[in-house]
Amino acid sequence: MSSKKKNFDSVEKQLELISRGCEEILPLEELKKKLTFSHKNGVPLTIKAGFDPSAPDLHLGHTVLLQKMKQFQDLGHQVYFLIGDFTGMIGDPTGKTSMRKALSREEVQENAKTYEKQVYKVLDPEKTQVAFNSQWMESMSAAQLIELSTHSTVARMLERDDFQKRYESSSPISIREFLYPLIQGYDSVQLKADVELGGTDQKFNLLMGRELQKAYDQEPQVVITMPLLEGLDGVAKMSKSLDNYIGIEDSPKDMYGKLMSMSDTLMIRYYELLSDLSSEEFTKRRAEIEEGKLHPKKAKSLLALEITSRFHSKELAESAAQDFESQFSQKKVPEDRFHIQAPQVNENIIDYLARSLPDLKFSKGDFRRLIKQGGIRCYQNIELENEQKINDPMSTAKFEKGNILKLGKRNWVEIK
Amino acid sequence: MSSKKKNFDSVEKQLELISRGCEEILPLEELKKKLTFSHKNGVPLTIKAGFDPSAPDLHLGHTVLLQKMKQFQDLGHQVYFLIGDFTGMIGDPTGKTSMRKALSREEVQENAKTYEKQVYKVLDPEKTQVAFNSQWMESMSAAQLIELSTHSTVARMLERDDFQKRYESSSPISIREFLYPLIQGYDSVQLKADVELGGTDQKFNLLMGRELQKAYDQEPQVVITMPLLEGLDGVAKMSKSLDNYIGIEDSPKDMYGKLMSMSDTLMIRYYELLSDLSSEEFTKRRAEIEEGKLHPKKAKSLLALEITSRFHSKELAESAAQDFESQFSQKKVPEDRFHIQAPQVNENIIDYLARSLPDLKFSKGDFRRLIKQGGIRCYQNIELENEQKINDPMSTAKFEKGNILKLGKRNWVEIK
Repeated sequence: MSSKKKNFDSVEKQLELISRGCEEILPLEELKKKLTFSHKNGVPLTIKAGFDPSAPDLHLGHTVLLQKMKQFQDLGHQVYFLIGDFTGMIGDPTGKTSMRKALSREEVQENAKTYEKQVYKVLDPEKTQVAFNSQWMESMSAAQLIELSTHSTVARMLERDDFQKRYESSSPISIREFLYPLIQGYDSVQLKADVELGGTDQKFNLLMGRELQKAYDQEPQVVITMPLLEGLDGVAKMSKSLDNYIGIEDSPKDMYGKLMSMSDTLMIRYYELLSDLSSEEFTKRRAEIEEGKLHPKKAKSLLALEITSRFHSKELAESAAQDFESQFSQKKVPEDRFHIQAPQVNENIIDYLARSLPDLKFSKGDFRRLIKQGGIRCYQNIELENEQKINDPMSTAKFEKGNILKLGKRNWVEIK
Repeated sequence: MSSKKKNFDSVEKQLELISRGCEEILPLEELKKKLTFSHKNGVPLTIKAGFDPSAPDLHLGHTVLLQKMKQFQDLGHQVYFLIGDFTGMIGDPTGKTSMRKALSREEVQENAKTYEKQVYKVLDPEKTQVAFNSQWMESMSAAQLIELSTHSTVARMLERDDFQKRYESSSPISIREFLYPLIQGYDSVQLKADVELGGTDQKFNLLMGRELQKAYDQEPQVVITMPLLEGLDGVAKMSKSLDNYIGIEDSPKDMYGKLMSMSDTLMIRYYELLSDLSSEEFTKRRAEIEEGKLHPKKAKSLLALEITSRFHSKELAESAAQDFESQFSQKKVPEDRFHIQAPQVNENIIDYLARSLPDLKFSKGDFRRLIKQGGIRCYQNIELENEQKINDPMSTAKFEKGNILKLGKRNWVEIK
């Protein structure tokens, strides 16, 4: 905590911002008490969020947490970006868990830099304290770890959903895995955290921090869980493997385009979790959309612009917006389209596309699905006249020089 | 292992002695292999037995293990008396386990001395290596303990009988308790143990040593479990709280007397587990008893003499034997009898005895039971004439000056 007295917003105002989009605040009463104390005495709260030390490649889903951290920063509190490098540096000799190879100190430092590069697009570097738990865990003795392990029980650990499931399905859980939540909890003891933020999937581990702080005679931290952001499909959580994600290192064009492709419902959700709008502005904008005062497409473009600006720059975001408008709204064909030869005589449509567009990395199955979903259109010319849907995956490709194809939402092809 | 080549008995002969009285040898084939290698190369095996560091007060039950250790010593192998002081020095801040208070290094040293004083009545001090696991555990880091914990699973731990029962009955098991078997197993890695000895109740922990040695690329130890010695009642295991025990610091008289009080069946068991007789001698003696060539009472006195000599001296044991003979066999009243006043008029027998013999520390219930079992006799005089059993606990005490009472097997009283 800083020794300089600060001025904080009223507890009510802070709570309004902090609560936005949260899944749970456990317990809310304690957060109020902490904020009241902080406000009265002008001392910031200590906010902790932990990140794993493997090479980060963040998407917007991860930034939900960063956004909440930023709000705490904006409110004047001290935010710790804690990298759990200690366990990463141990490695796993059995290869039983996913963490197979021990990371060297250099790799950890390297990954930390990559993190900083990415997260400082959201967080304020000046107000962020980066910490590594190796700082206290490396000097911990086995005796101290045994003492730590006194403070939880086997039954408590097996309450954790994934442990319970694995135990019941006889899938092995190494004793080591029982020690990790204890270490994560002990990090809160070391930081004397007032609040720990995490995804809903982290709830168990975050609560462990409360238990350990009590055991070590500290006031327990308040646990705030953030929902897992839905991906672009609006159904599953955003994840790389589901291909419904927006990477924070996506190009301005991709980021803007992907954001514009989301549904109206999802847009409200993204506003809630990702926008920098104040609570009042957010409430107002939502009302305007619901009352029909603001067209959803316009609202979407405002959000897409805000987010794209965050990860690139205002200029690049505006240029991406213009490109998008000219391509999609004014039906103009973008410059960076593919150019392919006309099909051979009697060539099947799928064979033709797969052969001519290897850079798309679509399988024949992908093309087949796309056709069945009505996702392939053919236009007579660059002015996009005479649109025709390709409906039959068994049909012969019949395209001529000058025709334009549109595959899915963003891939354009010109027949040479 | 010693660098000097030794000569060992044949593998068969060694196996015969080692197997005597054992509950299990796991696996026997590996023990044969180790003994064969040892015999061929003249190198002793490393034998480990672990003891807890709390203040020891050993009874004959504990010496079953010591006896087996001594046999290994006699066969020329290297015996480690391992005191698990590390965990004892940590203590338990929650008080959830029985080990509440951390022992200081001084207390551990003090307890070790008490151990040595007691166990060197069985083991050869020259051939015993006393080790403390704090030697390697104190310098172990949390990271190394986490690595160690990789090598076992939650399901494996919950196979241990007591853990399983407690888990099923929702009685809490601290994570710390899962670490102890790992540490005990790791002690075997550190000692490079070839054989670990322990009670049947230790089987799980001993087998953990095998698993960890494999994980640390060592040849796994052979596990030898010894049965829990039955107490003097011949039913329950010997234990202080059941009051069926012979403490190794009992007086020669008590020790000899208690040993003479056991049943003939129990005698054979005690011979098997406690006697120093060679395998041939033991087999011979058992046959002599069974064939009626040796009277059980005589056999019992030979064993009582052997064991009493072990914990005291031959002279004291023989003197105890003579005392016993004169008291019990020749019906003479021992010198150290109680002297009490005659009863008051109309005094109930139990009230009278309880009032007059506080040093016996018998409750009224104890006297009542004793009477019902026919355990109180009255003789007219010091020559033990006119024996009468006291049968009725409600009766009035009617004793006169000069009468002799015998309470149970060893307590004598003279009426003044």
